[in-house]
Amino acid sequence: MSDQQKKKIHKPTPISGFPEWLPEVRVVEQSWMDHIRRVFESYGYCSIETPAVEELAVIAAKGEDVDKEIYVLERLQADPDDKKDARLALHFDQTVPFARYVAMHFNELVFPFKRYQMQKVWRGERPQAGRMREFYQCDIDVINPDNLPIAFDGEMPAIIWEILSSLPGMENEKIQIRVSNRKILLGFLDSLQVNDPVAVTRIIDKIEKIGGDEVKRLLSAECGLSGENITKILDLVRTKDIKNLSGANTSMQEGVDELSAVMDSLAHLPKDAVVADLSIVRGLDYYTGTVYETVFLDDPTYGSICSGGRYDDLAGSYINKHLPGVGISIGFTRLFDRLRAQGKLPVSKKSPTEILVMPPRDADAIRSAYDAAHTLRRNGWNVEVAPGRKFDKQMSYAEKKGIRYIWFVEDGEVQDRETREKTKAAPADWKKS
Amino acid sequence: MSDQQKKKIHKPTPISGFPEWLPEVRVVEQSWMDHIRRVFESYGYCSIETPAVEELAVIAAKGEDVDKEIYVLERLQADPDDKKDARLALHFDQTVPFARYVAMHFNELVFPFKRYQMQKVWRGERPQAGRMREFYQCDIDVINPDNLPIAFDGEMPAIIWEILSSLPGMENEKIQIRVSNRKILLGFLDSLQVNDPVAVTRIIDKIEKIGGDEVKRLLSAECGLSGENITKILDLVRTKDIKNLSGANTSMQEGVDELSAVMDSLAHLPKDAVVADLSIVRGLDYYTGTVYETVFLDDPTYGSICSGGRYDDLAGSYINKHLPGVGISIGFTRLFDRLRAQGKLPVSKKSPTEILVMPPRDADAIRSAYDAAHTLRRNGWNVEVAPGRKFDKQMSYAEKKGIRYIWFVEDGEVQDRETREKTKAAPADWKKS
Repeated sequence: MSDQQKKKIHKPTPISGFPEWLPEVRVVEQSWMDHIRRVFESYGYCSIETPAVEELAVIAAKGEDVDKEIYVLERLQADPDDKKDARLALHFDQTVPFARYVAMHFNELVFPFKRYQMQKVWRGERPQAGRMREFYQCDIDVINPDNLPIAFDGEMPAIIWEILSSLPGMENEKIQIRVSNRKILLGFLDSLQVNDPVAVTRIIDKIEKIGGDEVKRLLSAECGLSGENITKILDLVRTKDIKNLSGANTSMQEGVDELSAVMDSLAHLPKDAVVADLSIVRGLDYYTGTVYETVFLDDPTYGSICSGGRYDDLAGSYINKHLPGVGISIGFTRLFDRLRAQGKLPVSKKSPTEILVMPPRDADAIRSAYDAAHTLRRNGWNVEVAPGRKFDKQMSYAEKKGIRYIWFVEDGEVQDRETREKTKAAPADWKKS
Repeated sequence: MSDQQKKKIHKPTPISGFPEWLPEVRVVEQSWMDHIRRVFESYGYCSIETPAVEELAVIAAKGEDVDKEIYVLERLQADPDDKKDARLALHFDQTVPFARYVAMHFNELVFPFKRYQMQKVWRGERPQAGRMREFYQCDIDVINPDNLPIAFDGEMPAIIWEILSSLPGMENEKIQIRVSNRKILLGFLDSLQVNDPVAVTRIIDKIEKIGGDEVKRLLSAECGLSGENITKILDLVRTKDIKNLSGANTSMQEGVDELSAVMDSLAHLPKDAVVADLSIVRGLDYYTGTVYETVFLDDPTYGSICSGGRYDDLAGSYINKHLPGVGISIGFTRLFDRLRAQGKLPVSKKSPTEILVMPPRDADAIRSAYDAAHTLRRNGWNVEVAPGRKFDKQMSYAEKKGIRYIWFVEDGEVQDRETREKTKAAPADWKKS
């Protein structure tokens, strides 16, 4: 009786919300990651990584309504005497871990501290189609004690534009980064003596989805605003000419000045790449000035693929310092998976191998194949030695894996599978161009 | 009343077993990761990543005694109607996820399938000093339906040697890869008609830690072996001359032939880099032939930093195919943290930035600083524009972050902080050498 006959099969199925890729897709994902990292570093951002978990108390200290999205860990067979072990939860973003990291290592960091972080995050959503429960985010933030120059608010969109416009497969996507400053709308609402400005901004936030007329209706029905005020608010929100906007009060004027400075610093980017859009308010309460959203121009209702803003105090709940900062986050997997599903990624090779070395007829001379492979690797090539000599089988393997060159050690020849040409060659002289 | 006065501080503390690094250490970790990935790919291994979680039933299907080490996930506020959601657990290694991946995507993979995987794994150990609960592993495996050539068993140590001997900071470490083949000892024990060969191999496995005399005592006391057999076994285990070993039965002879072939293929490596060592048996039951361990020669009791072997059937519990394979795993974080703690890592820079551009005196000319930075980035440099003009402050910032060059836009000069020399330069001509 063979093992196969008696073995019990547990056929695995995909877990909803936890995507995984075939090798040919993964290699594109890696090229995206490499590209993003390279651009982040070219602007002086350093990498950090934090554990997948935080203490539940640390996450809870942020005081946001995220409880239902949190995965907590339980040891399958915890010992009864381990009760003092703190409760751990998977992080649901990279902002909380970053804030905790800065608080914990404050004295060892150099400020302004510019960091990037590219990790998976987890959200314990109900399993449903299209909703991800594990995904990569790519975040950058700059923070500085007490005071952070507005120049950094302009750096964020410049970096994001550079990344998104040159990711492999994104070349033909029309994307737009929209920038606003919450001080403008909030200052204006304050000048109008609006009772519940947060409720108003929540409605404004939906203008792209529900349209101007519905926004008007809601502002009247839910916030009790007068028609005159509604008109004023919508006029403001639709203003494109930020420079000539005059502040109704100090706070609004501050917002106008800051947003103008940010837009000035981005003047070198293509027209429409980054625009000021006063309807952008972002839901999260901790943004206090500049805010960003990024949309596909041909599908703006897909939602923001890259968002962020300025906050007054990053780590206030963990350390007695005042730490203003500004940051932005790429919803990496959400963006990547959209292009993958649309067939827009440059998916091709199933293997990194570029050269397949055929072993010699004489099995005792196999060393010559390993030596050739070794020399070719030192010249920068990715090389496999074929595990057998059956020519058709190896050619089929090379074709399926997308391996371009076949190396014949004993003939001193290399064949290009694309052109079918054979050339005389020595491994030491065969350099990558 | 300021925000700072009224805010409640929750001072975070490190979580035992979940290491995290400062930026200057993280950058070395990244260079290690890059190096390992490059070598893996140069041998034709493709990258895959699997989710952090598997279904608990998938992990349990492996039937190993790992239950107590497993972290399961619970949603903090699961809805009562979500009960049908499968129980999820964090993976504790990369072999189970790999086996599940191969079973699930079998028809879309090209065989022999060579993959690498560099991810965090989690073990729900009791918190205690030095025990890690989250760490990186770097695995490679090759699998092929029905039959996998022995050549791949020789490739594993070659790859590992190439990696370990050239990781930054590892240059002066004396490491040794030890290879054996379980068929040799098990075949020999069978020829001696030993009752409980697994118990014997478990004792042999400890020979480096407890010494030969204690092994003898245990083989007699616990396994009831005769003095004659114990001598024979220890003689075998200490044999260095594998080639001239003659098999006591077919299985042992097979092991001798396989191990000889593996060692022959590694003859080009430095003496003592890879040795045959018949005392290596590895605890895990699923290894059936070649086995590997890797030790620091000056501290062999630290335990293996890189282990693996050949298995008869990788994914047998998930798919009705016979899938033999061979693989090896670098205990990345365990190795990295040892060198870090010993102060052997080339830790230096707190930032990737190489050039700090000083803004011009005229604030309206700030564009010239951004343009210079942009051009320098296109030339391959990592560049920051200083957010202010206070010279001493910026120089101190550059020093703390390890930024080598200071660029003075309006003077058309660059200063090398190491040599203190100033030279005339235009950003477009300043190429990275």
